[in-house]
Amino acid sequence: MTNEKIPYKIYLNESEMPKAWYNLRADMKNKPAPLLNPATHQPMTAEELSGVFCSELVQQELDNHTRDIEIPEDIRNFYKMYRPSPLVRAYCLEEKLGTPAKIYYKFEGNNTSGSHKLNSAIAQAYYAKKQGLKGVTTETGAGQWGTALSMACSYFGLDCKVYMVKCSYEQKPFRREVMRTYGASVTPSPSTETEVGRKILAEHPGTTGSLGCAISEAVETAVTNEGYRYVLGSVLNQVLLHQSIIGLETKAAMDKYNIKPDIIIGSAGGGSNLGGLIAPFMGEKLRGDADYRIIAVEPASCPSFTRGVYAYDFCDTGMVCPLAKMYTLGSDFIPSANHAGGLRYHGMSSILSQLYDDGFMEAVSVKQTDVFQAAEEFARVEGILPAPESAHAIRVAIDEAMKCKETGEEKTILFGLTGTGYFDMVAYEKFHDGQMDDYIPTDEELASYAAKLPQI
Amino acid sequence: MTNEKIPYKIYLNESEMPKAWYNLRADMKNKPAPLLNPATHQPMTAEELSGVFCSELVQQELDNHTRDIEIPEDIRNFYKMYRPSPLVRAYCLEEKLGTPAKIYYKFEGNNTSGSHKLNSAIAQAYYAKKQGLKGVTTETGAGQWGTALSMACSYFGLDCKVYMVKCSYEQKPFRREVMRTYGASVTPSPSTETEVGRKILAEHPGTTGSLGCAISEAVETAVTNEGYRYVLGSVLNQVLLHQSIIGLETKAAMDKYNIKPDIIIGSAGGGSNLGGLIAPFMGEKLRGDADYRIIAVEPASCPSFTRGVYAYDFCDTGMVCPLAKMYTLGSDFIPSANHAGGLRYHGMSSILSQLYDDGFMEAVSVKQTDVFQAAEEFARVEGILPAPESAHAIRVAIDEAMKCKETGEEKTILFGLTGTGYFDMVAYEKFHDGQMDDYIPTDEELASYAAKLPQI
Repeated sequence: MTNEKIPYKIYLNESEMPKAWYNLRADMKNKPAPLLNPATHQPMTAEELSGVFCSELVQQELDNHTRDIEIPEDIRNFYKMYRPSPLVRAYCLEEKLGTPAKIYYKFEGNNTSGSHKLNSAIAQAYYAKKQGLKGVTTETGAGQWGTALSMACSYFGLDCKVYMVKCSYEQKPFRREVMRTYGASVTPSPSTETEVGRKILAEHPGTTGSLGCAISEAVETAVTNEGYRYVLGSVLNQVLLHQSIIGLETKAAMDKYNIKPDIIIGSAGGGSNLGGLIAPFMGEKLRGDADYRIIAVEPASCPSFTRGVYAYDFCDTGMVCPLAKMYTLGSDFIPSANHAGGLRYHGMSSILSQLYDDGFMEAVSVKQTDVFQAAEEFARVEGILPAPESAHAIRVAIDEAMKCKETGEEKTILFGLTGTGYFDMVAYEKFHDGQMDDYIPTDEELASYAAKLPQI
Repeated sequence: MTNEKIPYKIYLNESEMPKAWYNLRADMKNKPAPLLNPATHQPMTAEELSGVFCSELVQQELDNHTRDIEIPEDIRNFYKMYRPSPLVRAYCLEEKLGTPAKIYYKFEGNNTSGSHKLNSAIAQAYYAKKQGLKGVTTETGAGQWGTALSMACSYFGLDCKVYMVKCSYEQKPFRREVMRTYGASVTPSPSTETEVGRKILAEHPGTTGSLGCAISEAVETAVTNEGYRYVLGSVLNQVLLHQSIIGLETKAAMDKYNIKPDIIIGSAGGGSNLGGLIAPFMGEKLRGDADYRIIAVEPASCPSFTRGVYAYDFCDTGMVCPLAKMYTLGSDFIPSANHAGGLRYHGMSSILSQLYDDGFMEAVSVKQTDVFQAAEEFARVEGILPAPESAHAIRVAIDEAMKCKETGEEKTILFGLTGTGYFDMVAYEKFHDGQMDDYIPTDEELASYAAKLPQI
């Protein structure tokens, strides 16, 4: 099928692996807006933040200027267990589509957590351990982040307390069990363990929870228990910093074979994968050294970029977290229950929001049946069963490749394949059985949520 | 943690990948016993076998003399999608155990099928396609083989009909759904679709099926439908041939870094992984070029090697298949329902049976709670959630490493990590909840099954 010199999978040698994360903010002229104290509406200080987050992570969160931040040796050693992740040339998909485009994907599902989330989980666990903490708290929805954090905490001998959105807890018992295998405690949220949980339960009896609600519970538990801090798997600047390992490896592998992508595509929920994948490419673009077309893909049922508002908003339902400026649908927004495709967070990374607002990237939204159709098409030829989240990027990569087929252009397309779909078979089953539909929020609905944004 | 030159993961370059499978039988002085016609008890001819199997696979099944059999280019191209698989130095496990032993594992779970089964599935699908067949039939228990075959058939555009042991079909709906994603049809066995299925249902109403029964149904469907053949994921000589890719890659990677294993450990159900992993090492041993300690690990609840009989036996319950000489517990033997660890087949590869009988390898059996304990210990430090099947080898690798700790010997231990346990979380849950026990068949039970062996 191929006689070209570019292998199916490009792996870096250990010696070629990045030794520092890349801090994209250093190259941004318009810096991302700071987190605000929800009471005073003043920028959060390091001291205020360090009640919630580990100290070194607070520094990373606030550092808008240091370009390269060294990856500690212990983290690099852990990365070696599952990194470098492969950069794959999708020869089989290209052939199936009959496209002249060259398609590459960076596959982050080759570890037990099953997704890219481990890249930041291990970093956050490392800094927690270094600070001498007992443990960390977090929330998880579909369970990828919770799984990754459980693995990381197990590795460093940290206690790990996960608040799992109740509907996922009940629908995804296997995810829960993986976390238990790694020694984490998993509580369905909202729970009666926290004040904010009890309050939400009193106001909404029978609720099956949301990410925003689980975040509130995790934060409360962290700040009210000695020796604990809260950690988060997306949205934050520190998370994008850690995830830059994805883009750095990708760029090193492409440079090695003299490949230059024309289009870079990533799925976008809170922005952790997209921000990591594009980081060094966006850096070149910001510095004027190269140009790339960069596309964020989001679900039509949770369209923060394409139909949201760029404004300060709460990160959680209980409003205990700092305020972040971001493209948001409003902190009360929850995608329709029939949405099975992940990427459900109401907001978006402040870094990516600023870059999008400045016109450095595009965004498109896609319907979930189209996403699952792309997922299945990809799985059948490329031999990887993608997570629904990841399949958003596949959908647009295929769409762009088909445009190349029409025009005859031999564009090079790169996308991020963030993880595997082993724990999403209920959603696949719905799709196979024709029971999946495409709910899209109306303008009126979105306006009603936007009207509740804090006035800042 | 490490400053050694040997990387965490050793990958071969594409140019270093094997271009031919290695046929271990060529180096065996005592050849494996031939398959016998169940009616005449005469060796099965190529013509007889070609009613059941694809023609080229029949040749491979019967060829005891050609040492190297070229891997067709189409198969090598498919292999490139997920191979070479990594050979991993288990630095973290070594550190956790505090052992001076050096532990390596060849990880075959890095593909959507989640196990080594894909290595033979793609080969068998290729030959079926080449012969112009419409499709293939097979059976699956836990679902690894069915998943792998579905992927392979999807790739070549072949129809794929899977008989899935009924209890697995009901307990593992996600496995079934993965197969559907790849376009396979999946039928719970015993079914009313086949004569043998109806007969078994009449004799055992309410039975939840067995591998031996599903095999009978798959074979009947293949031989009674124009353009179909039967394919099998283990036991057969052809399967071990294809799986030699595991051992060949392992040996090439070890040779590259001048590593020589002292002990080689593999889990053994029907023998597909063990036979593939050890092939080139065993070849050296048979030729007197090198010596290795080779250990087959099987479940205490299904102990073919350690407590079985070396005799001709039926491969299936319906007795429609040829007879094979093997270490067997009797074709009616089914492990206790509380056994969750896989490796449930009553017999064992004829090749491995002969080698074991000739004293070229050892066998041990392990209890399932010990297996899951090893699985969890491994997962927590190595970041891979192993399939219960694979964890049998982990158990013995840890045991051997702990012996080295006692003696201070720096032995090099190699084991095969055949796949991931994402679809085995029910079993992990049982283990976590303390609801897993260790049923071991009594001597009387085994004797009663052995008494029913065919007299040949």
